[in-house]
Amino acid sequence: MAAEEITIGVVGLGLMGGSAALKLRQAGFATRIVGHDVNPQHGQEALRLGIIDEQVSLAGLCRQADLIILAIPVNKALQVLPEIMEQVPAGTVVLDLGSTKEKICALAATLPNRQQFVACHPIAGTENTGPAAAFPELFKDKVNIICDAEASAPQAVKRATAMARALGMRTRFMNSREHDRHIAFVSHMSHISSFVLGQTVLEVEQDEDNIFDMAGSGFASTVRLAKSSPEMWAPIFTENATNILRVLERYINNLNKFKKMIAEADEAGLKHTMQEINLIRKVLEARKQETET
Amino acid sequence: MAAEEITIGVVGLGLMGGSAALKLRQAGFATRIVGHDVNPQHGQEALRLGIIDEQVSLAGLCRQADLIILAIPVNKALQVLPEIMEQVPAGTVVLDLGSTKEKICALAATLPNRQQFVACHPIAGTENTGPAAAFPELFKDKVNIICDAEASAPQAVKRATAMARALGMRTRFMNSREHDRHIAFVSHMSHISSFVLGQTVLEVEQDEDNIFDMAGSGFASTVRLAKSSPEMWAPIFTENATNILRVLERYINNLNKFKKMIAEADEAGLKHTMQEINLIRKVLEARKQETET
Repeated sequence: MAAEEITIGVVGLGLMGGSAALKLRQAGFATRIVGHDVNPQHGQEALRLGIIDEQVSLAGLCRQADLIILAIPVNKALQVLPEIMEQVPAGTVVLDLGSTKEKICALAATLPNRQQFVACHPIAGTENTGPAAAFPELFKDKVNIICDAEASAPQAVKRATAMARALGMRTRFMNSREHDRHIAFVSHMSHISSFVLGQTVLEVEQDEDNIFDMAGSGFASTVRLAKSSPEMWAPIFTENATNILRVLERYINNLNKFKKMIAEADEAGLKHTMQEINLIRKVLEARKQETET
Repeated sequence: MAAEEITIGVVGLGLMGGSAALKLRQAGFATRIVGHDVNPQHGQEALRLGIIDEQVSLAGLCRQADLIILAIPVNKALQVLPEIMEQVPAGTVVLDLGSTKEKICALAATLPNRQQFVACHPIAGTENTGPAAAFPELFKDKVNIICDAEASAPQAVKRATAMARALGMRTRFMNSREHDRHIAFVSHMSHISSFVLGQTVLEVEQDEDNIFDMAGSGFASTVRLAKSSPEMWAPIFTENATNILRVLERYINNLNKFKKMIAEADEAGLKHTMQEINLIRKVLEARKQETET
């Protein structure tokens, strides 16, 4: 790959697109990077920060890029993808980085040049947004999920996995429908629980000093995701509504059961429940060691 | 302080007691540290790790220590405190580190030598437990809350704040009842939302690989507290039940409102709600800067 001259076109110059651009340049995967953002300030900032070499129109980007990375909110991706797929020359690979995959794969199936599209979800992110939040190591040691790979040309999948490798990621393949179901539990629900925790505390604690002083014991990490971008997350929540509503229902039911145990001072029940939940440590740490060794 | 010969007696040699012992020795605040733990393995381990100089009985600890630190689950502290307060010589200061303060202050008010007791809550912790989890910097830059200080002798409060300073903490004073109300929102609720999130994911995701691979985007930090000790947290939840039930009620109501917006695909409502929640960033970061400068 590094021997080739590859021009990357990044649509959306925020945390995800900006971080990918920085790392792909650093790794020698990209020789030139052009960018497009509907927000002209983001374009200017990305240029100034050395994230892109040039700001171009969407049509210009489609002409110039060998690999197009769509790094915009999932609803915007659905709007822009048809325009891109109609314009891209043969051989150009288009991939998106969105957190939901079923709808974009269903849409892609109806578009020209479907084989040139690869549906990706790099499981990485922070609560920060915009070009200034971008950093090259965002994707390091994380997992990139490619969905419905059988609908993409083998060459396109190969380029997507090579890009993921250059970003420092492992690739895993999954059906888009399965992906959306799993990710509702593991990622989307985390964001909702965090947003609503932040909301509940803000509503009641008028005195900001109390929040700050008492935040030491776990609040700060649990509420971290509540700083995330509403522009990005609102469309994810509505797009993956069916799966998310099922998880939320279950989460609320479990909260009600937990609440009942507290109300009944059922310490044995609480301990037993929490001991079972403690298994999450083993799940996360056993696999972590496996990956490290 | 450093000029004096101070023997510290630590009851409960886990994360909190162990970390305090390590730092107080390192800072030169303690010249000798004796310890007591109902679990003899913890006592042995604390000795081996250099956390304490000697394992002693509770009676021996009361005789030897100038400052007694009670670092055990809140229900156990209620059991042990009367025994300690009856035995301590004049001048010995007793403090506890529990996460709930109203009940222990009410109990202390009925005991002999109340003036020698200082109710403390250092807002610090990790999800790990036992002597091996202890580390001297646990309390660094955190806040120690002293409750109902007017019931303690000024000399005792002075010793407690000096100890907090040696641990690297600021001290704040608060009414025990207020403390329990605020901490239910900021700390206890965080633990419940995290425990129940872990539970919900574990119930559904039979395939541990999915949890691990998809955990990148926020799940790991949001679920961190779900690894916390059931022995420690069950009594906190039941002891602070009145306040926690009020918060949980509100949290569940907010979740239901959020769920309704998702079900109705109300993207504007979701965005507006999340924009307001984003204020949590300002609260946490503005004060952080203030503290740092």
